[in-house]
Amino acid sequence: MDNLYIALVHYPVVNKQNQPIGSALTTIDMHDIARAAMTFGVKGVYVITPFQDQADLAREVIRHWTLGHGSRLNPCRKQALELIRVTGTFEGAVQEIEAEQNGPVVTVATSARMHPNTISPHALKQTQGADTPCLLVFGTAWGLADELINQCDMQLDPITGPGSYNHLSVRSAASIYLDRLMNG
Amino acid sequence: MDNLYIALVHYPVVNKQNQPIGSALTTIDMHDIARAAMTFGVKGVYVITPFQDQADLAREVIRHWTLGHGSRLNPCRKQALELIRVTGTFEGAVQEIEAEQNGPVVTVATSARMHPNTISPHALKQTQGADTPCLLVFGTAWGLADELINQCDMQLDPITGPGSYNHLSVRSAASIYLDRLMNG
Repeated sequence: MDNLYIALVHYPVVNKQNQPIGSALTTIDMHDIARAAMTFGVKGVYVITPFQDQADLAREVIRHWTLGHGSRLNPCRKQALELIRVTGTFEGAVQEIEAEQNGPVVTVATSARMHPNTISPHALKQTQGADTPCLLVFGTAWGLADELINQCDMQLDPITGPGSYNHLSVRSAASIYLDRLMNG
Repeated sequence: MDNLYIALVHYPVVNKQNQPIGSALTTIDMHDIARAAMTFGVKGVYVITPFQDQADLAREVIRHWTLGHGSRLNPCRKQALELIRVTGTFEGAVQEIEAEQNGPVVTVATSARMHPNTISPHALKQTQGADTPCLLVFGTAWGLADELINQCDMQLDPITGPGSYNHLSVRSAASIYLDRLMNG
């Protein structure tokens, strides 16, 4: 998958009671997901938040590591964080990718919960050409709100193990899905 | 692999200049790796540090989430952090596992760098029986020191993507290796 993008969504997501909320930025999500994205050849990572102070914080982190002291301290981190783009809405990220790619992007939701009609990463690769732009969408907090999941074109199977425990961090989930898509 | 354990090593690891150091605890490593371990049916997660203040901090985090307020706030986190055990040395972890399993444990190093004679997660599964106790060893900071890698019975292939970038977080690397071992 040569034109893969990631969206890390902070709104609309849900809390522990499955109520829609906007979540706060967790800066280590940006680092871990950008490093995994860089490893697996992802084209861009969208941090999506409607909150101006959170968008400012995200841009400050990016600036530190791509232009500031952090960029000289750790060039590997610089390379990774250069992949990150900040937008206010999911739709804004989709529009930006479609402009960059001169065509539609397939949006693919992820969730730890079972939903009908999910597909495997392998099936996603098989059904889409290698060049098809795809946006893999991850929720922070307790996951993407159903309204955003339903807005996406497809949804990936949840990551499961031998038991029923399904509480991976979004950092772990993004890393595993990327590995399955790129190496699986 | 029904008897898999994880070691998260803080000494001996290396810094950016490949010099042996002892690293500081990163508490989110404990959370992310314990959550992945719980998801994939790992038997125990060893946090290994020779520094008393760091061991105390690790135990304080575990206590908060398994016995304190955190355990009532988030029972899923409780389940995960109950997997964590703290030891001062790698040898101490190995001894504890061997006592628990009544027999030897196969130690398997991980590294982002290329080494001779590494094997794939698939080959590890094939060559070891499903019941064989295995300890998967991860380094913090810039990775395990060679002396510890060489002390292990085997070493897994590094996780790679289409390019040469090899700077995953230990949280991402542990998640991907577990997925490959349990679902690959």
